[in-house]
Amino acid sequence: MDEFALIEQFFTGRGVCRDDVLLGIGDDAAITCPDNNFELVIATDTICEGTHFLPGTPPQALGHRCLAVNLSDLAAMGAEPLWCALALSLPKAEPDWVRQFADGFFAIADRFGMALIGGDTVCGPLAVTVTVHGRVKPGQSIRRNGAQEGDSIYVTGVPGLAAAGLRVLTASGVTAKAGVPSVQRFLYPEPRVLEGRALSGLATAMIDVSDGLIADVSRLLEASGLGAEMDLASLPLAAVGTDDALELALNGGDDYELCFCVPPGNAAELKLRITDWSCPVTQIGTVQPSDDIVWFIDGQPCNTVASQFKHFS
Amino acid sequence: MDEFALIEQFFTGRGVCRDDVLLGIGDDAAITCPDNNFELVIATDTICEGTHFLPGTPPQALGHRCLAVNLSDLAAMGAEPLWCALALSLPKAEPDWVRQFADGFFAIADRFGMALIGGDTVCGPLAVTVTVHGRVKPGQSIRRNGAQEGDSIYVTGVPGLAAAGLRVLTASGVTAKAGVPSVQRFLYPEPRVLEGRALSGLATAMIDVSDGLIADVSRLLEASGLGAEMDLASLPLAAVGTDDALELALNGGDDYELCFCVPPGNAAELKLRITDWSCPVTQIGTVQPSDDIVWFIDGQPCNTVASQFKHFS
Repeated sequence: MDEFALIEQFFTGRGVCRDDVLLGIGDDAAITCPDNNFELVIATDTICEGTHFLPGTPPQALGHRCLAVNLSDLAAMGAEPLWCALALSLPKAEPDWVRQFADGFFAIADRFGMALIGGDTVCGPLAVTVTVHGRVKPGQSIRRNGAQEGDSIYVTGVPGLAAAGLRVLTASGVTAKAGVPSVQRFLYPEPRVLEGRALSGLATAMIDVSDGLIADVSRLLEASGLGAEMDLASLPLAAVGTDDALELALNGGDDYELCFCVPPGNAAELKLRITDWSCPVTQIGTVQPSDDIVWFIDGQPCNTVASQFKHFS
Repeated sequence: MDEFALIEQFFTGRGVCRDDVLLGIGDDAAITCPDNNFELVIATDTICEGTHFLPGTPPQALGHRCLAVNLSDLAAMGAEPLWCALALSLPKAEPDWVRQFADGFFAIADRFGMALIGGDTVCGPLAVTVTVHGRVKPGQSIRRNGAQEGDSIYVTGVPGLAAAGLRVLTASGVTAKAGVPSVQRFLYPEPRVLEGRALSGLATAMIDVSDGLIADVSRLLEASGLGAEMDLASLPLAAVGTDDALELALNGGDDYELCFCVPPGNAAELKLRITDWSCPVTQIGTVQPSDDIVWFIDGQPCNTVASQFKHFS
C-alpha cells in the first residue's frame, strides 16, 4: 500500500487554488467554506473498466472522463463547479500511467475552475469514482421535474456521436483513430457546464443525456408527470457512414449533452443566450399534457421508437 | 444496467431526513443548504474486496464498514456528520444481498444522523466508495499538524483488536465466530464520532488509526514537525491468546480509533469529558521537540519499533 500512498503525490499541490478551500489533500478530510448566498450541489459517478470504458483506454482520456461525466451532472442542474474528490482504484502502481491520468484530470478540472480537495488511492480493479460539488443561487437549480405543458424540448450537440466513436474503437482497437471526431467525442466527452449555467432562469427542466436520448427524455418527462411529441426528423445526426445514425442518436449513450425544456415565452431570450455557445442547439419536441411520449418521423408516429420507450419507462 | 438502476430503489426514501437537504436521490445531483455558521468537512474512502475486506464478508458488515471508515475521518477532524454519497460497484444485481447491505448502511447512518443524498450503482468488481460531509465551527477542526511540545498523546479503545479479529476470520472462515469480540470489532468498526467532537477546543492534533498505531502516530507527528517518546508498556492490548498482541497493536491496522494530543493544561478538562465515553482512553506518549519518535518498553528504547518507524517515514 505504500506505493499507492506515494501515488497520491501526483495529485497534491496541483490544479487551481480556491479561496473557499481552507484545507486540501493531506489530512483526514478536507475543509471548505461554502458561500452562504448559494445552495450546494453534489453528484457522484463511478466509471469501471469494461463497463464504462474499454480496456487499454489512454490514461489521459480516463482522467478526463471520470471528471467530465460528473461535471455533466452539475451542468444539468445549472450549477457552477467548485470542488471534487477522487477515489482511484488501480491494479498496480505505475507512475507513468498515473502521471498521464493526472494530466487528463487536471486539464479539465483547471478549465472549469474546479479544485481537487481530497480522495483515496487503493489497490483494486481499475475504477474511478469522483464526487463533485457545485453551487447555484437559491432556488435557481434546474431539476428534472419542472417541465410545463407547451414547453419546447431542446438538445445540445449531436446525440449518437459518442456511440459512433465507441463503435469505431470496438472495431479497430482502442488506440486507433484518435483523430476521428466521433472517437474524440467518445474519449473526451465535453460537459456542457457553461451552457447549463446559462439556462438558469430560462429552462424549466433539464437532464444530461448519458444513457441515450430516449431513456433520458423519458426520465425527464416522467419526473415532470407529462408526455411529449418528439420530432425525429429535426434531430441532428452523426455522419457515421452507416444507415443507423438515428438508432445511435436515440439509444447510443455516453453523449453527455443536455436535454432541456423552455417555455415559448423564453424562446427569444434562449436564442440570444446560445449565440456564443460552441455546440448546436436543436428543438426536438414539445411537452404535452398526456403521459405518452410519441416520436414522429415526417409527421407519422414511429412505433419502433414508441415500443423502445415503453421498455425504458 | 436496468437492474442496477432498480437496485437504487433500496436506498431511496430510507434513512434520516434533514432540513438542510433540499433535494436528495433521483435527479442529476443532490442539493443541500450548508449552515453558514460552520465550515464544511469532506472525506472520501474506498473499500475493495480482497484489499479491504475478505471475499464472503456479510453484506450487512460491508454496508456498515463503508460508512464507518468515512465517519472515522470526520471524527478525526472533530466534525459533526451531515450527508453522504454512496458509489456501489457490484458484479451482479442480487436484491437480497443489496437489501442486507442497505440495512447495515442505514443502521449506522441513522445512528449518526447522516442523510444519504445520492450516489451511483454500477456493474463491476465488488467495491464501495463513500463521500461524507460534516461540519465544524469555524477554526474548530482538529488537524494533524497542531501538536505542541509537551502535549500528551492519547489513543482510544484497544489498538490491535480489529487485526486480531481479521486473523481469526482468515484462519477459520469469514462467517465463523461472529460472536468473538475481536471479530465483531473487525467486521463492525466503531467510528469515534462523539469522542472526536468532544475533543474540540481541547486537542491540538488528531488522526484516526487505520493503518496501525506506528504509521498513524508517525503521520501526525510528521505533519506537526515534532517527535515523541512513546510508552509501549502503557498500551492496552487485545486478549488474543498469543504473545504478539503488541505487534498487532502497533502495526495491525483497521482499528479506526482516535489518536490525539492534549496539552498538560487541558488534562483535567479531558478527564471530565471522557467520563461518559464508551471506550477506554490511554495516554501512550509525550510530544518532544526533536523529530524522532522513540518507543520505550519499561524505560528502555525499543530498536525493533524504531526501525519500523523509519520504514514508514
